[in-house]
Amino acid sequence: MLETDFTYIIDTFFTLFAMTLIIFMVPGFAMLEAGLVRTKNVTSVLTINTMIYAVASLAFLLIGYKYAFGSWENSSMSMWAAFLFQMAFVGKTVNIMSGGVSERVRIIPLAIFTVVMGAAIYPTIVNISWGANFLDGTLLALHMHDLAGSTVIHSTGGWALLAAIIIIGARKGRYIDGKIRVIPASNIPLVVLGAFLLWIGWFGFNGGSVGSISSKESADTVALTIMNTNTAGLAGAIMAGILMYMRYRLFDITMILNGALGGLVAVTAGPDLYDMYSPILIGAVGGILVVFAVPFFDKLRLDDPVGALSVHLVNGIWGTLAVGIFVADVSFLDQLKGVLVVAGFVFPVSLAVLYAINKLVAFRAPDDMQVEGMDVGECGVEAYPEFKRAI
Amino acid sequence: MLETDFTYIIDTFFTLFAMTLIIFMVPGFAMLEAGLVRTKNVTSVLTINTMIYAVASLAFLLIGYKYAFGSWENSSMSMWAAFLFQMAFVGKTVNIMSGGVSERVRIIPLAIFTVVMGAAIYPTIVNISWGANFLDGTLLALHMHDLAGSTVIHSTGGWALLAAIIIIGARKGRYIDGKIRVIPASNIPLVVLGAFLLWIGWFGFNGGSVGSISSKESADTVALTIMNTNTAGLAGAIMAGILMYMRYRLFDITMILNGALGGLVAVTAGPDLYDMYSPILIGAVGGILVVFAVPFFDKLRLDDPVGALSVHLVNGIWGTLAVGIFVADVSFLDQLKGVLVVAGFVFPVSLAVLYAINKLVAFRAPDDMQVEGMDVGECGVEAYPEFKRAI
Amino acid sequence: MLETDFTYIIDTFFTLFAMTLIIFMVPGFAMLEAGLVRTKNVTSVLTINTMIYAVASLAFLLIGYKYAFGSWENSSMSMWAAFLFQMAFVGKTVNIMSGGVSERVRIIPLAIFTVVMGAAIYPTIVNISWGANFLDGTLLALHMHDLAGSTVIHSTGGWALLAAIIIIGARKGRYIDGKIRVIPASNIPLVVLGAFLLWIGWFGFNGGSVGSISSKESADTVALTIMNTNTAGLAGAIMAGILMYMRYRLFDITMILNGALGGLVAVTAGPDLYDMYSPILIGAVGGILVVFAVPFFDKLRLDDPVGALSVHLVNGIWGTLAVGIFVADVSFLDQLKGVLVVAGFVFPVSLAVLYAINKLVAFRAPDDMQVEGMDVGECGVEAYPEFKRAI
Repeated sequence: MLETDFTYIIDTFFTLFAMTLIIFMVPGFAMLEAGLVRTKNVTSVLTINTMIYAVASLAFLLIGYKYAFGSWENSSMSMWAAFLFQMAFVGKTVNIMSGGVSERVRIIPLAIFTVVMGAAIYPTIVNISWGANFLDGTLLALHMHDLAGSTVIHSTGGWALLAAIIIIGARKGRYIDGKIRVIPASNIPLVVLGAFLLWIGWFGFNGGSVGSISSKESADTVALTIMNTNTAGLAGAIMAGILMYMRYRLFDITMILNGALGGLVAVTAGPDLYDMYSPILIGAVGGILVVFAVPFFDKLRLDDPVGALSVHLVNGIWGTLAVGIFVADVSFLDQLKGVLVVAGFVFPVSLAVLYAINKLVAFRAPDDMQVEGMDVGECGVEAYPEFKRAI
Repeated sequence: MLETDFTYIIDTFFTLFAMTLIIFMVPGFAMLEAGLVRTKNVTSVLTINTMIYAVASLAFLLIGYKYAFGSWENSSMSMWAAFLFQMAFVGKTVNIMSGGVSERVRIIPLAIFTVVMGAAIYPTIVNISWGANFLDGTLLALHMHDLAGSTVIHSTGGWALLAAIIIIGARKGRYIDGKIRVIPASNIPLVVLGAFLLWIGWFGFNGGSVGSISSKESADTVALTIMNTNTAGLAGAIMAGILMYMRYRLFDITMILNGALGGLVAVTAGPDLYDMYSPILIGAVGGILVVFAVPFFDKLRLDDPVGALSVHLVNGIWGTLAVGIFVADVSFLDQLKGVLVVAGFVFPVSLAVLYAINKLVAFRAPDDMQVEGMDVGECGVEAYPEFKRAI
Repeated sequence: MLETDFTYIIDTFFTLFAMTLIIFMVPGFAMLEAGLVRTKNVTSVLTINTMIYAVASLAFLLIGYKYAFGSWENSSMSMWAAFLFQMAFVGKTVNIMSGGVSERVRIIPLAIFTVVMGAAIYPTIVNISWGANFLDGTLLALHMHDLAGSTVIHSTGGWALLAAIIIIGARKGRYIDGKIRVIPASNIPLVVLGAFLLWIGWFGFNGGSVGSISSKESADTVALTIMNTNTAGLAGAIMAGILMYMRYRLFDITMILNGALGGLVAVTAGPDLYDMYSPILIGAVGGILVVFAVPFFDKLRLDDPVGALSVHLVNGIWGTLAVGIFVADVSFLDQLKGVLVVAGFVFPVSLAVLYAINKLVAFRAPDDMQVEGMDVGECGVEAYPEFKRAI
């Protein structure tokens, strides 16, 4: 057997394995968000998650992928496996964005934005960071190390979310008379299930991003990457739990899980380069950032029901910078430049696109639809029609 | 290392991977159906799904597998892996059938039918299509291309379901005074979770059915198969969503997901042979068929609470014929003959077997048990005893 | 390509695959237990499961792993993959223990015990059975065959649980005036989902414990191991179902699933050595044992809301002894000695550690906290705040 045949076969298989793990993030996001919102908005959130996977993936298949990478050709593995792996990423950027505008966003304008994100905005970011690189040779060319997308995925989704919150506004009744109304999550088992499906998906996300397992070196890198990914999640969960207990003498599981997810986002830029102890610190900082960012955004009246800005945007930035801090060979300035260039492109472009779509079809559900619940108004399907509501 | 050792090892590993994905369809079907039925029948549905996996798999281990394939021997991979992969399929045929008679079917006669299906009916279909082929050389010998069972699995389950609905009848109260009573799904998050577990399982179902990943060509075919499988699901979901919105100005997630599943069933016969665009059309037609078939079967008073006839039978037929339409080298007549032979065997045999079992132990729960709920009558365990019911 | 490179790459990949399956057991245990307890204790149980994964894994990373195996070095696969696989096991011992003291155990003392288990107790058992073996050459040296931990994992967790129940006592109101109050499970879909995630995780647990898939022989052994694992689960489910029906004319799904899990625990010591029929018997006995052990422990006033003693301790012992009964080359006495040595270490040490922690921070929640629910008292987060309670 030829060495090239071996690597082609093994890397195709491995990439399909990694892709499959990432697809578990589709129900993962769906369950997490369905658990975090009120029962009257659960079907809407689930419908949005399903729509995003379908629309973003198809837009990427038809347009985005070729734009991002310049070509479908691939010599190191099956081109179809390489596509599937990248396709598994694209919806995540919109998932991050849609989660944060839950309970008031409408489906049709979001579907339009999903097409733009899947066909144009996200592929542009991939193009300049992992792909064909049309900025190559210019001053804007990126040289950051971002293995699996602390910036490319998570900050991209986070900046789009910030733009969306500015355009769409807070949920009706969330901020009244200068006070913040606490709205509890409606189904905690779904939150936990969703968070762990995301966690497992992350092994595929980061491990698969190594791109090969067919040499001893790459096999080591993949395994180290997955270990470090997991470690940062552990540390983020523990740190968030400790902070919440110190503050409230209670273990708030939604914050603990967001701490874990924050740690996972933070480690995503460089798990292949860290030693086995750094991710403890990186993840712990990720957990701390989430705990402090959640009330911070609330103070700014940026209403984000699932904490997506704190988890994905804040930790996407932190994680990208962390590679420049913890890894000697990586330039901090290159990392910072990557963060700023992506911010400088995604935020204003998203703002403009969202503004334009909003003129065409309003993103924000009218007040009475929000009060009655998005499920009735948008889907005609209640999530739990037989259960009597206490509140 | 010998080439044959390499293929043996890799294909064993790959087949175990694919089998594992298919096993996720066990909770997948269970959650989908538990979400679609009323709360008073949830435990019953879950018990049935668990029973089917246990009984069908054991019947296949003890009897069905050897009958289907003529021997346990296998030279291209571990014979145990080859068995496990095939075993993962068998319960699906009964899952399809049991789902459609939910909310009135009793467990014991269903368990008896499960034995017959797992030991005899399904293995017969496998024998003549993928297996030992005891019809070889006769006029009835099948030459259809059915990679992963649009006909062998989905139509088989669908024909058995049609026979079962005829024998068992509609749920009490479903059709009154010529009107159809709409019965809403009780738990939408479970429906979504189940549908995506099925979707992911389909990657193993169809990808694993290629049978090998240990050459560059087979690795390409596996990856293409999984990509095409996914694409058809995307298209089915989008098309069902568009049709529902055009009709009702609402996004009905249960129909969108059944559209996705319809697309997945439809592509299953030939994802290894299609180019990358055909599955968009095949899946979209699958979604359309589901949207129109669901009310059509209701007009015929064929009461199918989960839409299984529309998803599995209609699209199993469409998907098998589609290979003859979209692939130049495949004979449409061979595909049609496959559809008809399987129909001509499974439907009357199932009808006779179900009729005989029904004489022995009634399939249909008495009216008062249906009114009180199958959970109390059959299981003694309510699904959600602490939640107060609104309806 | 060198043969050693091939085995290194394939076994690293395979071990990462197996590890990932095991991680599905984290949401698996969480969903199973969240479904089995009352709604007022669901968040607490979920928080505990999350905490265990985070704390036990980190303790094992920092201390336990090196103690168990003597070194991080590994020549047959990536050392990081070898670690991840072992790390996936460690939390399970505490999951087993924590499940059985649900609805009255407090989080902080449990977290302290989790550190001790992950850093010291469990690594000691691994050391003498699979690891560095500091007892080698002494009379206490173990020579049992315990492929994936009927004793090392399940009995260890079970003995720790027995000690914990003795220290912590029964739930308030469980045993009153000599009567046992039946407390129904609150969410059956979660129980089923959790059980099947565990079942799938078992394929990784037992299959991965073969340690290699990179030769024809090891590939066969892995596939046989997974097949036998599954078969025992099937048999346990069926047998428990039959027994419950004979007794009550009802199919109790929680008992059926515990029967399946009992069968899975029982087969775990020797699935690599059995022929394909023995697991039917071993699993069926496992199912029988669960059905009889659950009321037996209740008679002893050992309050175990999830049946963990019956599933893990009783079947861990049975499964370990079964290897000595069913496999000619395995000494029954070596198996028995393994069972006794592990019991003789884990039970008294756990009792002493739990006793000491209990003096420091009480394990048992005060009565009023139990009545109000652990979720309010420990977490400040209700699991289903919007659903009106019927009981």
